[in-house]
Amino acid sequence: MSVIGRRGVHYLQKLKAANIPAELIEKGQNRVIDASLTLIRERAKLKGELVRALGGVKASSTLLGVPLGHNSSFLQGPAFAPPRIREAIWCGSTNSTTEEGKELNDPRILTDVGDVPVQEIRDCGVDDDRLMNVISESVKLVMEQDPLRPLVLGGDHSISFPVVRAVSEKLGGPVDILHLDAHPDIYHAFEGNIYSHASSFARIMEGGYARRLLQVGIRSITKEGREQGKRFGVEQFEMRTFSRDRQLLENLKLGEGVKGVYISIDVDCLDPAFAPGVSHIEPGEEF
Amino acid sequence: MSVIGRRGVHYLQKLKAANIPAELIEKGQNRVIDASLTLIRERAKLKGELVRALGGVKASSTLLGVPLGHNSSFLQGPAFAPPRIREAIWCGSTNSTTEEGKELNDPRILTDVGDVPVQEIRDCGVDDDRLMNVISESVKLVMEQDPLRPLVLGGDHSISFPVVRAVSEKLGGPVDILHLDAHPDIYHAFEGNIYSHASSFARIMEGGYARRLLQVGIRSITKEGREQGKRFGVEQFEMRTFSRDRQLLENLKLGEGVKGVYISIDVDCLDPAFAPGVSHIEPGEEF
Amino acid sequence: MSVIGRRGVHYLQKLKAANIPAELIEKGQNRVIDASLTLIRERAKLKGELVRALGGVKASSTLLGVPLGHNSSFLQGPAFAPPRIREAIWCGSTNSTTEEGKELNDPRILTDVGDVPVQEIRDCGVDDDRLMNVISESVKLVMEQDPLRPLVLGGDHSISFPVVRAVSEKLGGPVDILHLDAHPDIYHAFEGNIYSHASSFARIMEGGYARRLLQVGIRSITKEGREQGKRFGVEQFEMRTFSRDRQLLENLKLGEGVKGVYISIDVDCLDPAFAPGVSHIEPGEEF
Amino acid sequence: MSVIGRRGVHYLQKLKAANIPAELIEKGQNRVIDASLTLIRERAKLKGELVRALGGVKASSTLLGVPLGHNSSFLQGPAFAPPRIREAIWCGSTNSTTEEGKELNDPRILTDVGDVPVQEIRDCGVDDDRLMNVISESVKLVMEQDPLRPLVLGGDHSISFPVVRAVSEKLGGPVDILHLDAHPDIYHAFEGNIYSHASSFARIMEGGYARRLLQVGIRSITKEGREQGKRFGVEQFEMRTFSRDRQLLENLKLGEGVKGVYISIDVDCLDPAFAPGVSHIEPGEEF
Amino acid sequence: MSVIGRRGVHYLQKLKAANIPAELIEKGQNRVIDASLTLIRERAKLKGELVRALGGVKASSTLLGVPLGHNSSFLQGPAFAPPRIREAIWCGSTNSTTEEGKELNDPRILTDVGDVPVQEIRDCGVDDDRLMNVISESVKLVMEQDPLRPLVLGGDHSISFPVVRAVSEKLGGPVDILHLDAHPDIYHAFEGNIYSHASSFARIMEGGYARRLLQVGIRSITKEGREQGKRFGVEQFEMRTFSRDRQLLENLKLGEGVKGVYISIDVDCLDPAFAPGVSHIEPGEEF
Amino acid sequence: MSVIGRRGVHYLQKLKAANIPAELIEKGQNRVIDASLTLIRERAKLKGELVRALGGVKASSTLLGVPLGHNSSFLQGPAFAPPRIREAIWCGSTNSTTEEGKELNDPRILTDVGDVPVQEIRDCGVDDDRLMNVISESVKLVMEQDPLRPLVLGGDHSISFPVVRAVSEKLGGPVDILHLDAHPDIYHAFEGNIYSHASSFARIMEGGYARRLLQVGIRSITKEGREQGKRFGVEQFEMRTFSRDRQLLENLKLGEGVKGVYISIDVDCLDPAFAPGVSHIEPGEEF
Repeated sequence: MSVIGRRGVHYLQKLKAANIPAELIEKGQNRVIDASLTLIRERAKLKGELVRALGGVKASSTLLGVPLGHNSSFLQGPAFAPPRIREAIWCGSTNSTTEEGKELNDPRILTDVGDVPVQEIRDCGVDDDRLMNVISESVKLVMEQDPLRPLVLGGDHSISFPVVRAVSEKLGGPVDILHLDAHPDIYHAFEGNIYSHASSFARIMEGGYARRLLQVGIRSITKEGREQGKRFGVEQFEMRTFSRDRQLLENLKLGEGVKGVYISIDVDCLDPAFAPGVSHIEPGEEF
Repeated sequence: MSVIGRRGVHYLQKLKAANIPAELIEKGQNRVIDASLTLIRERAKLKGELVRALGGVKASSTLLGVPLGHNSSFLQGPAFAPPRIREAIWCGSTNSTTEEGKELNDPRILTDVGDVPVQEIRDCGVDDDRLMNVISESVKLVMEQDPLRPLVLGGDHSISFPVVRAVSEKLGGPVDILHLDAHPDIYHAFEGNIYSHASSFARIMEGGYARRLLQVGIRSITKEGREQGKRFGVEQFEMRTFSRDRQLLENLKLGEGVKGVYISIDVDCLDPAFAPGVSHIEPGEEF
Repeated sequence: MSVIGRRGVHYLQKLKAANIPAELIEKGQNRVIDASLTLIRERAKLKGELVRALGGVKASSTLLGVPLGHNSSFLQGPAFAPPRIREAIWCGSTNSTTEEGKELNDPRILTDVGDVPVQEIRDCGVDDDRLMNVISESVKLVMEQDPLRPLVLGGDHSISFPVVRAVSEKLGGPVDILHLDAHPDIYHAFEGNIYSHASSFARIMEGGYARRLLQVGIRSITKEGREQGKRFGVEQFEMRTFSRDRQLLENLKLGEGVKGVYISIDVDCLDPAFAPGVSHIEPGEEF
Repeated sequence: MSVIGRRGVHYLQKLKAANIPAELIEKGQNRVIDASLTLIRERAKLKGELVRALGGVKASSTLLGVPLGHNSSFLQGPAFAPPRIREAIWCGSTNSTTEEGKELNDPRILTDVGDVPVQEIRDCGVDDDRLMNVISESVKLVMEQDPLRPLVLGGDHSISFPVVRAVSEKLGGPVDILHLDAHPDIYHAFEGNIYSHASSFARIMEGGYARRLLQVGIRSITKEGREQGKRFGVEQFEMRTFSRDRQLLENLKLGEGVKGVYISIDVDCLDPAFAPGVSHIEPGEEF
Repeated sequence: MSVIGRRGVHYLQKLKAANIPAELIEKGQNRVIDASLTLIRERAKLKGELVRALGGVKASSTLLGVPLGHNSSFLQGPAFAPPRIREAIWCGSTNSTTEEGKELNDPRILTDVGDVPVQEIRDCGVDDDRLMNVISESVKLVMEQDPLRPLVLGGDHSISFPVVRAVSEKLGGPVDILHLDAHPDIYHAFEGNIYSHASSFARIMEGGYARRLLQVGIRSITKEGREQGKRFGVEQFEMRTFSRDRQLLENLKLGEGVKGVYISIDVDCLDPAFAPGVSHIEPGEEF
Repeated sequence: MSVIGRRGVHYLQKLKAANIPAELIEKGQNRVIDASLTLIRERAKLKGELVRALGGVKASSTLLGVPLGHNSSFLQGPAFAPPRIREAIWCGSTNSTTEEGKELNDPRILTDVGDVPVQEIRDCGVDDDRLMNVISESVKLVMEQDPLRPLVLGGDHSISFPVVRAVSEKLGGPVDILHLDAHPDIYHAFEGNIYSHASSFARIMEGGYARRLLQVGIRSITKEGREQGKRFGVEQFEMRTFSRDRQLLENLKLGEGVKGVYISIDVDCLDPAFAPGVSHIEPGEEF
């Protein structure tokens, strides 16, 4: 499993020390960010035009890759994940008809606007505050092209914060979240990092971007995980009591009275036997 | 071993059949191409500004990734290669001092302007004619930011054509090429594809972008490979006569009287024992 | 995973172009086919004599390998499968007592007549029409040696057609088939190939070799798959309604009023977590 | 790495104990052996007819597989090797032109008569004495079809004895042998097995099938290996003195005054870095 | 998968043959055994002192590794297992809080006294009779340091005999055993070895170290396995009747009226999909 | 690739914070250290007695494993290496005769005194100062048993310091060192660790344990590496000038006038193609 380091930022820090004007750097970074967002806007616009020209569709799932891995506390392979997920979707070993008979190669069902250029932005010395804004803005650009609906491919779980923030701000109010995961990802900060993949749902709840947060599949939770859950009113369902909670979960009515429902899936919600490359392994899966 | 298919173009073909106006599609594609080039220009400009502000350097090697794999006739993993190569460069298992004492983490030695978004451009239905132009333009944008010098990371070997074309056009005349490879890559076309990884050097020679082409390390060459070599005046050195040619090769003087020297390395020039993931395996390496 | 190409036939095509008399080739091919069948007959006869001399057994499962992979539309590893399956049966990691207490190393329980030499026959330029006949004849030769009962090891799923045809013709009437698979394998033709692994059950139903065909475990079925199912009266049980169908399936009474029951297992009926090398992956297994 | 056991013979031993008439078994075995040889004869005959009809060739390399692994004292994977070697020859990653410009898909250059059905013969209870005869007879059947010349694919190295015996008997006198290997394979017997892969060249020398035996590349030789070498007049060249012996070896004139030259290659003559799956690893290769 | 041979003892046998005084060898071996046990005693004593100084704990799980693999009849990797298991416990991919909220890095919950130096003792020529005594003594040394409770890490399953013997002798009477395994491990001897991993529970029952033995999860049992089960009054629960036995098993009351309960887990009780490196594979797991 | 963390010490730090008397801990640690050294002494003594009883040998290579990995700055697999190296030595794929005809299974050629229990000592909270002393003492205990000569199996390269110190102190003066490595391992400290695997030869030179230090095979050396080399008079031979230095190296006369010669081999001196699991990869090997 690949391990990429926390590179990229240090160039700029060294350059500052060598008395490079901060303004020169910041202006260049802003131009790179603007061009990145322009590119995503144009790709979304083209795909939106095509789907609208085809006509007759209310929502088209639209892939948006966020190849970000540096906020994971262990393996950082998710930085490489989006092209791998697309490869699996289009791999010759399957046909493109879903179980319910939909054709994935019809752009009214599935389109793709490509990746946010996360690694290049970081390599230009952009810090996580601004990077998270770029991710949020990218999600909004997709949502502006009706009927496209973003289906975001991570990346480590830290991206859920900027993605949910964008969805909530664009829809104009909080959403309900169904969160399938072996961990609650709700530490205030992990190893000092407030943007850690283990803290994204703390940021979401603090920001008021979610009305209900249902966490299903938890097998590894610490004292802080439980306390943060109580503090934010999170509904935490652990696997060890799954058979007791099953009926309740099968009759969930999410989204009534709010602007939408957001589903967040961490592949470690699956047993490692079924997801052997996952970083944070927790045997005992949900289903 | 990863195998990604020749997807992306077929959306557009289907859309045309459904009477989508061709103009709508083409205008959208052009906007995407423009935004892609703008983004590369801005990244190159920021890196150029930084290196110039640091001062005192005549040439800074600048990584430019071209993640293109669909012109390979067998495995298409090179579409994933550039992030993997960067990972190997910065991996914690090595320090960043070269054998000659240069520090790779000094931007005056090595900078990076990221990848050309090849997969996203193809997914917008852009064909190979225009894609090859995007690659050439991207190389020129890097060369415009003196003292940056492009060190292009493939991608399958079909990218050598647009890259050498850009270098030659920017410098204002043909270059000399040292080409390390197990194959001559000089078919007129391979399986009908004139942009095949097996045809890139035919395109280069036809275009007059090279004065001398030295191919070193060849272990697999067909009759057509030899005939094309003669037709274009290529100097082909096969491994089976390497000991005879060694002294000549060690005293080469390339580049005199032309605008520059271009070096093109196909990793299959190495024996598969030293490059185990290579697609087109040819035992018996150069060195 | 191994990928072998569609070789073998092209020698003969080239030879015809070079004015080799077709009669010479066809006579040679027929001698090779005759000798292949003679060899299977003699191996079956020896094993039959042994089991009869031991006495007291009504049916002895008899392995017959059919190492054929070229009718698979993706990976073609099944061409190597029969020796691997035997290796797994006899591997030192298990003892040879079954869950029900039978001893696999007693020839009255399990014998083996080896493989049909599929690759050699194809390399002699024999086409699929005649190859399918060789497979059918081989199955019949085993059935002639009472009490041997063929337990056929594939090979891709295209072999089910010649095998079921042989069983039905030898028994003198149609059989009932229990077919465990993630796919219905009932296209009229797949990529133009009527002998495709995705078409074998269309050939079986057209030929009248089955009275009832029960397909259990289906997770990937297209519109054509459903239409062909209706056309032939196939009973298709999909995994998404498995809990509803469970009781019916557990009380099946197959084989009453027909000559026999044939069971056909595609390993992709298992979830890929339990059969990781399978070519056409469809998560969500039967049991 | 695959490990197949020494199965096959025990059925017959058990059957004898149960008073099955030995004559019944032996007659059946002989019929199986006869049919096996008939099949090889017919395949060779068809290929010989084709090559002769094409005309103009003095020798056509003819693949003959011998999938035998039970005489290896460690890993027994060579029992699966011949189909894997063919897969590598025809794999899409290479073209079919050799370094010297020959076309491998021209049957005047390369034909194939398939495998000796070693596993099936053993499963019928045939012992190694008779199995070695079947291998010798198979080689002779290929040689009878002029201009076919056997290029035998092992199998473990025990097959060299029956193959060289056949070549010598067919040619009418001893041959010279160039033997590339990390070991001399010349024990009188290894672990009591006179047909061991470590004893084949003792059998060859005892039988008078070779005039000169040159063993090149030896890195692992015991006292018995050296004594047997002296006893039979073997010319043993060890890697540790390779630079001293190099000139002599590059000017070898084998075959003068004898009926032919036989070349025997054990892949462990290569360093394990270049042949990673080899069973008996001996670092330090020949070339 | 690693395969280590049955080495170690042969040095001493050879030395005896060369007239080394047996007394010299035996005295040296005894000094090595004494020093080995002293080292375990001191490590246990230090850990016991620490836990007692921390106070307030009735039982502290204490890892004791027994890296023994030579009594396995197939793969012998368990000889390397204890350091690998510790690596998995402390691996950065998990936090150290258990599902029930216990902190594994609190020594009152988990301590470690390291491994019995099994390989070194065997290399000194100590036979299995005395080696089994060393293992038993090591377990007792841990139990003497109240509140330490041994959690023994194998090692192949042959170690259960000396471990259970020690526990029973130290507690002063038989225990009840819950044994989770795919096999009953109760042959009188396997391949002539009374200390085989397939015979450990025969030794335990003969010695009177267990009152009740419940074997749960059995998928592979021979006639001898069932007969030995009856002879010793073992309660054998096979997977094929698991749903029938489930309620009984969920209401077990082990340990009443005896000195303690011992739980023995063979990882092959899990389906090979969940424990892919296991040696003796038996699909169909317990839970 | 295995990654074990820097565990073990933190237990004791926590215990101190909880007011456990430091004296109690230190006395327990000393008892564990004493028992560890006693065990090594007894194993060495037994092996020494045996070799002396066999008679007629001046030096017997004696394996001593030091499974220490925590001083590596990247992968820490060397903590598991000694049992793996022994497995490779005794693996059934090779015979035990060396190229020069010596029999490895004769204890006069090769004996084994097992491993220093590094992990257990660290888990008792012993710091690196004292651990390095335990390693030095262990080496001396082996040297006291004439004619045993330690052949130390690492472990990361940090162990060279305590091993060379022991050899020098026991012999009574400095030694000459031939050091084969891709790196000079001579930083004053690496990431603040003076016992780092990258600093061991700085410690050796400071202590005066070596007269000459020849470093051969260097491919990765920083400015500090060169400066430390000059400061200590190290003879550094880099691979890039190997052909120039070859003759000098082939005529080395080490050891004249000093007490002995020590050879230290880092497997990364080999090209990663020949040592694929090595942590710090530096292509381009020595030989």
